[in-house]
Formats: sequence, C-alpha cells, structure tokens
Amino acid sequence: MSSRLWLASLCAATLLPLTALAAPERTFPSELGTLQVSTLAEGLKHPWALAFLPDGQGMLVTERQGNLRIVLADGKVGAPLSGVPQVWAKGQGGLLDVALSPSFKQDRMVYLSFAEGDAKGDKAGTAVGRGRLSPDLSRLEDFNVIFRQQPKLSVGNHFGSRLVFDRDGYLFIALGENNERATSQDLDKLQGKVVRILPDGTVPDDNPFVGQSSVRPEIWSYGHRNQQGAALNPWTGELWTNEHGPRGGDEINIPKPGKNYGWPLATHGINYSLLPIPEAQGKQVKGAVDPHHVWEKSPAISGMAFYDNERFKAWDHSVFIGALAAQEVIRLKLEGDKIVAEERMLGQLNARVRDVRVGPDGFLYVLTDEEDGELLKVGLQP
Amino acid sequence: MSSRLWLASLCAATLLPLTALAAPERTFPSELGTLQVSTLAEGLKHPWALAFLPDGQGMLVTERQGNLRIVLADGKVGAPLSGVPQVWAKGQGGLLDVALSPSFKQDRMVYLSFAEGDAKGDKAGTAVGRGRLSPDLSRLEDFNVIFRQQPKLSVGNHFGSRLVFDRDGYLFIALGENNERATSQDLDKLQGKVVRILPDGTVPDDNPFVGQSSVRPEIWSYGHRNQQGAALNPWTGELWTNEHGPRGGDEINIPKPGKNYGWPLATHGINYSLLPIPEAQGKQVKGAVDPHHVWEKSPAISGMAFYDNERFKAWDHSVFIGALAAQEVIRLKLEGDKIVAEERMLGQLNARVRDVRVGPDGFLYVLTDEEDGELLKVGLQP
Repeated sequence: MSSRLWLASLCAATLLPLTALAAPERTFPSELGTLQVSTLAEGLKHPWALAFLPDGQGMLVTERQGNLRIVLADGKVGAPLSGVPQVWAKGQGGLLDVALSPSFKQDRMVYLSFAEGDAKGDKAGTAVGRGRLSPDLSRLEDFNVIFRQQPKLSVGNHFGSRLVFDRDGYLFIALGENNERATSQDLDKLQGKVVRILPDGTVPDDNPFVGQSSVRPEIWSYGHRNQQGAALNPWTGELWTNEHGPRGGDEINIPKPGKNYGWPLATHGINYSLLPIPEAQGKQVKGAVDPHHVWEKSPAISGMAFYDNERFKAWDHSVFIGALAAQEVIRLKLEGDKIVAEERMLGQLNARVRDVRVGPDGFLYVLTDEEDGELLKVGLQP
Repeated sequence: MSSRLWLASLCAATLLPLTALAAPERTFPSELGTLQVSTLAEGLKHPWALAFLPDGQGMLVTERQGNLRIVLADGKVGAPLSGVPQVWAKGQGGLLDVALSPSFKQDRMVYLSFAEGDAKGDKAGTAVGRGRLSPDLSRLEDFNVIFRQQPKLSVGNHFGSRLVFDRDGYLFIALGENNERATSQDLDKLQGKVVRILPDGTVPDDNPFVGQSSVRPEIWSYGHRNQQGAALNPWTGELWTNEHGPRGGDEINIPKPGKNYGWPLATHGINYSLLPIPEAQGKQVKGAVDPHHVWEKSPAISGMAFYDNERFKAWDHSVFIGALAAQEVIRLKLEGDKIVAEERMLGQLNARVRDVRVGPDGFLYVLTDEEDGELLKVGLQP
C-alpha cells in the first residue's frame, strides 16, 4: 500500500489524498441491527492506537514501527509528524498508545507510550512522554519522557500499554510485564503494573504505596500480565483495564489502589504444554482480586471503549473491545458494572483488531493490526 | 517435551512409556452434554494426521518435520519408523497425511502424503507414496512414490493434503495450489485439484478428463485452494473435502467429476488489503460450483471426520472439523447432505486443531498443531 501514499515529495504537514478506495461501504448483520462499515483509511502499517482531535480536526494514529500520523475525518492520511521519539520497534515493541491532555485545547499536549531500548539496544521497556502539537499539525514540539518502566527487561514481548486520564487529571498507565512473569509481583519494579502519575510525571502523594521502602511509588495496582486495553468508565469514573492471559484467561479488571490482580500466582489460563506455570497456584489465590470478567478461551483482547453517546441508542451502556486472535470486535452489555451479555461482531472482516474507540460523532472506530492496516468507521443502519 | 521421551537408547520398534501425564481428565460443557477430554499423548512435534491400525494396535501419527510414529491405545509413543521418505520440511511443508490401504490386513500398505523438494531444494510439491508396515511396526518397507504434483511450485505454502479411499478402492488426493492461484484453473497442472488414482498410482480409465489433450488425466475436480480436510461420507459413499479461503471463505465441497470449484475466480473471501484478488470475479461465477458450505469468517479448517458410530448417539450424523485459527473443533449436524446446525467445541483448550478422527471405539481423536502437540481423546459423559 505504501506505494499508494505519495510520500516522496511532501512536506511534513501535507495531507495525502489517498486514491479512491475500491471498497464500498459494507454491511454485516449484528444482534442489534445491520452494521455499516466504511474504510476510512487504509495502508496504515500496524496501526496501534488513535485519539480524536477536537473540533473535527481528525485523529492522531500511531503506527507500531514509529510513525504518528493525522487522519482527517474524510480519511486523508497525513505524513509522519516530526518530533516523535525514537522507538524500539522489535517484536511487540514500537510506538503504542496515544492520548490527548484533558486540557488539550489550552496546552495542546499529546501523550505517547512506546517501547524504549536500553543503552545497548538489547532490551527495552515501556516509556511515556508528551509533546506539544504544533498549530499546523506537522510536529510534536519539546517532547520529553515523563515515565520509564524500570528495569528494562523485554526482549520483544509484553509492553502493554494504554494511557487513560481520569476526571481529576491523573494519568494511568496500564503496563505489561515484559514476559518476565515474576516481576508482576515485585513492588520494586514497574512491570505488570498499573501506575498513576501526574501529567508531568511526578508521583501523587495519595498513591497507595507512597512512603513505603523498596516499593515504587508510581504503582497503583499490581499482578497484571499484558494490558493492552484501558478506558475510563464514563458512568462511574473508574479505570477499567483488560489484559491477555497466557493461554486462555484474558481478563477485565477494575484496578483499585494497592490491590493485587494475581498474575502469575492466580490465572484462569490453561498453560502451554500442560506444564504448570511455575508460580501459578490456581484460578483464585488468597490476597489477589479475581478478575471482573474472564475469558477461558483467549480472544487476545486489545483496546477498550465505553459507549456513552446518543447516536446509536442500542449500544448504550456497552463496552467495546478488540480481539486480535479471534479477529472480532467484542461488545459487552453492562448493567452497572456487571457484564450481562456478550456479542461478537465483525468477524466477517477476518482482521486482527488492535484498537476500538468511540468518536465524538458516536461512530465506532476500529484499527486493524495488519501490514496494510485499516481504520474502519462502524455504525448501525438507521 | 522431547526430553520426556526417552529416545536415546531405543531400537526403532520400542514403545516409549511416557512419564505419567500431569493433566487429569478434563471436562468441558458442550451442547449435547459434558465433554470428557483426556490427553492420550503429548510431546508430538506439530502432529498432522493419524490413522487407526486394526485390532487395537494403536495409531500411526505423522509429525510435520518428517517422523511417522506409532501411538498405542494407552498413549505410549513409539520411536520414528524407518523407511519413511525424506520430506521438504519448510513453511507448511513436511510429512502430512497418512492413510491405510483398504485391504491393510492383507497388504499392510501405508500411504503418506508429503512435501517433496525439487532437485535444487528451492521449490516443492505434494507427493504421495506407499510402503509396507513391517510386522514389528518399526519400519515402512519398499516405500515408493505413486504420485507427484507437477510442476513443483511451492516456496512453502499450500500443499494440502488429505488421502481418502472410496468404497471401490480408488484413492482421492485433495491438494493445495501451492499459493499459485491461477494454477487451480490450469488443467495441465496438478495444483488446486482433487485427483483420483488407483492404489498403484495409475490413472483410472473413467476419470473425467482421460483422453483430452493438455489435461492431466489424474484430475477429478479443479478450482480448489488449499484443501486440508477430506473424508468419505459413510452414508452416501461420496468424497467431501474442505479448504481454506484467502481471508474468509473457508469451504466444504462435495467434489464431482470434472467440475470446477471456482478458485480463484469465485470466492467468498474478503481479500487481504481490500485489493481484489486479480482473478476474482465474485462469490459466484458461471460454470463454477458453489461450495456446499462456506464460512465468511475463516476458522482455518483442517481435518474432517464423519461420526457413524454407536457409542455417542447424540453425535450421530455429525461431521467434525478442526480449526487452526479459531482453535476449536467444529461439529456440523447433517440431515442428508444438508448442514443444519453448527457447534463450536473445545475452545477452552486454546489449541490449534490440525486433525480430527473418529476411532473404532467411537471416541473423537484430536491432534493439536503445536511444537508440543497433543493427541486428545474426546467423549461425552454418560
């Protein structure tokens, strides 16, 4: 696809008219009506996350190998923005999540999570930084790193990560354990944790472990595996996260301060090779919080978006989650926090779903994790 | 796992007592009752197919990298048999299907399909040969190749293949198109075909294209993609095959002589990259037979077994199919040839299913396609 992006002669801010898309709008059945799916953009290289700019200015989209691009509402894809940090793009590593500052209209701050290599480039960890989006949308200015997962342990796996601001402006970072299982229980390490920081990277005084020796004060909750979805529940203001189990046992958690979510001591996964995970003690372990929801068969979930919009009333009080291995979008119906029904959607696309977001227009936006990835816009037929 | 197989000091025919399996019998819910699943053998390296020996002597199991082994009814795994041909074990290539001669008790002939490299080893095609199983079950004697897919075009993809004898002793070979799409429609090539030969490899006089110039007389049907399942319908005596679609569009066909099953002109698949497959004209094309059954979302199907046994009456008139990507066993309920219901089973195992067979004891036997693959025995709780 990249040959269809006329990259050669462009200055950074130019928006690229893609050639007209061959695919018409497609329709698929779903439980709550006919889905209308249009391909807003294609030719994205393993897109990982998107964030909506205000006032219909389009979206910021990350591509895993390190590019941040603007996609306009009509699907035009911009050239890579400059000022984005160098990322460690190996295995599952690279440029990952993107989020706007809650006060973006004033500060124009864009937050990115990414895999950052160590000095030798052998191992990496997740890092988070922020920069100011230039008025012409061509670059991030004064990008600086505000958080680093320490120590750097990943040889390519389990970086997480998602960025969520809560209503009070705290920044939650949902992390992976770098495929170093035991670290999820080590409170002196930042693997397998949800952390909570202030927008400038400093640690809030009221974090649960502040003041304890040998414990990282950034930690909000621990015992997580590889968290690739997180969102703020719009009806409660609480953080929800989701994570991949080892083989089975994908989970949704509602991380509470100081709590242990069990990995690798407690897991619902069936182990590879039927050999037990050395540390695993069972599905439930004393002192660890059970997952809010668990899939015994792993869809390999990624992305998370609550539906709180007037446009498609049938979707109200749902949460959407992408599925990589299952190649679907999962819709969970909520009553309060309780998950009362599950629908699988868009399996006909046969595409790995990396991220799902609800746009300000009430449509569901879906990123497919492919070498030639797509940004899909999904709605219900009236 | 291989360290648990005490291979070092064994003569070929020795049967290896595996250490006791850690996994107890597991139970899972299913539509027709509780499934009981026991791991009969593990530590098989990407097992691909199995065939039951008569008189409770166990099974022959292929491993993709080239080994043929005996697994006894109690799960003891034998050392690799000698006399098995050298296989081209790259990509999807290697040792594939295994079938016994219909008159095995008299002739002891074992048929194997496998990827065979060209002289330079750069490309490969599917080949089929046969050898006599020695009385001590340690080797195949006088193995000779009776069929070669010509020309050899695969660089690692789409070898098929399955072997099925019909009631009259004809041997059907369900093949792949080596990922060379157009060849499925080329009648001078053996890619993307079902072929029908006699057990010694000669061509039956009544094959549909016998006597036509520039057409391979082995061909029974054409326009297939990558067929990885085939079985004889026990109630009609007809061959059924299944094949992978490109992205969506997995199919079941009931191949009839001389008929065109459409690939790549007709496909229900959604194309990679939304770029049309150059040759594709739609889901239905004049002159091509529609699939008997199609999945718009690809489970990535492999293996096929009709259930015609007294043991579990609830399964009567079902056909079982393995699913690699979907990591399930699919059970289709039949009324005549018509598929009237579909059940997904054993998703909780989170394992790629390469082959399914019904044993003479009425249990379902399942091979998982893993580096540490398992042979599972599945029944319904009384």
